[in-house]
Amino acid sequence: MTPPNAARRSERAHRAILEAAYALAVDRGAAKVTIEAIAARAGVGKQTIYRWWPSKGALLLDVLIDAVGAVSEMPDTGDVTADLKAQMTAVTRLFQSDFARFYTGLIAEAQGDEAVARGLAEQLLDRADGPRRARLAKAQRDGELRADVDVAAAAEALYAPIYYRLLLRTAPLGVDQVHALLDVVLDGLRPRE
Amino acid sequence: MTPPNAARRSERAHRAILEAAYALAVDRGAAKVTIEAIAARAGVGKQTIYRWWPSKGALLLDVLIDAVGAVSEMPDTGDVTADLKAQMTAVTRLFQSDFARFYTGLIAEAQGDEAVARGLAEQLLDRADGPRRARLAKAQRDGELRADVDVAAAAEALYAPIYYRLLLRTAPLGVDQVHALLDVVLDGLRPRE
Repeated sequence: MTPPNAARRSERAHRAILEAAYALAVDRGAAKVTIEAIAARAGVGKQTIYRWWPSKGALLLDVLIDAVGAVSEMPDTGDVTADLKAQMTAVTRLFQSDFARFYTGLIAEAQGDEAVARGLAEQLLDRADGPRRARLAKAQRDGELRADVDVAAAAEALYAPIYYRLLLRTAPLGVDQVHALLDVVLDGLRPRE
Repeated sequence: MTPPNAARRSERAHRAILEAAYALAVDRGAAKVTIEAIAARAGVGKQTIYRWWPSKGALLLDVLIDAVGAVSEMPDTGDVTADLKAQMTAVTRLFQSDFARFYTGLIAEAQGDEAVARGLAEQLLDRADGPRRARLAKAQRDGELRADVDVAAAAEALYAPIYYRLLLRTAPLGVDQVHALLDVVLDGLRPRE
């Protein structure tokens, strides 16, 4: 068994590495960050990093999962409109912060690194998408939403515009636009008879 | 005045450069393409390229605009559902082709090159988004769509999922999913009373 002090030290080093990688990637862009620089900033040896992560890409994916952890949760108050508004606003605000620079850098890395691309697609999207789809499906069972609608398509209509703005580097979606988007997707484009 | 033969030669060289740049970017990814390689493949001198384009980024943006030209047009048959279905299907098919590799490479370039990012956002998105918004606004005037809806939000709910799939490298949107998306956004998520 690892003695308690060693476990605590190890936990501290792990956290320091994640924080150093995030700060450096925000500062320089993911492409220009090296394992050497992360190790130096975190005050650990390179070997410590390689003990936990096989590559820079794998480490940055963990940083991403850590950073989006807070906004990956989907509230359930029983009012799906309020829950979507709260969650979409939280994602929007995250994308208006420093995090945007970290995330777009990682997306750029993914275009040339198949493992990062797969990791992004599988881990992060499933992690974020799963709870959104589940919340929409529950609202269908509650009679709040049409039962015959494709929840995957609904989740993408709601969330893709937030990502798309970030990735195509147009102005980030504002909170007002979150409301306009919710209005469109909840009530539809066709006139109600 | 440029004599007709010179104008024809110039037009041919211009076209050869666009095609060489596209083929090389599909093959190697935009980041690894050089002006030298484009010039060699097009059978022109580097100076000929620099006469028309100040940088590789500017040239690749023109290639992009050329490639998406065909799917940027928005049909108007008087039936907005049919027009959206046709246009969204055309974009989806383009994104399932070789073009996807070209486009994701250019997006990656944009993360580290502010001029490319601005060019992508301004030229391409305005060029693609403008006709979509205009078509939706006309459908509002025709009474086909709710008049009180934000057309920018509607256009993004419809098209962002197509781009988002491409950029985040998950499975590209299929034609069935285009139909599911249209169903969600046209009829909305809420049950009709």
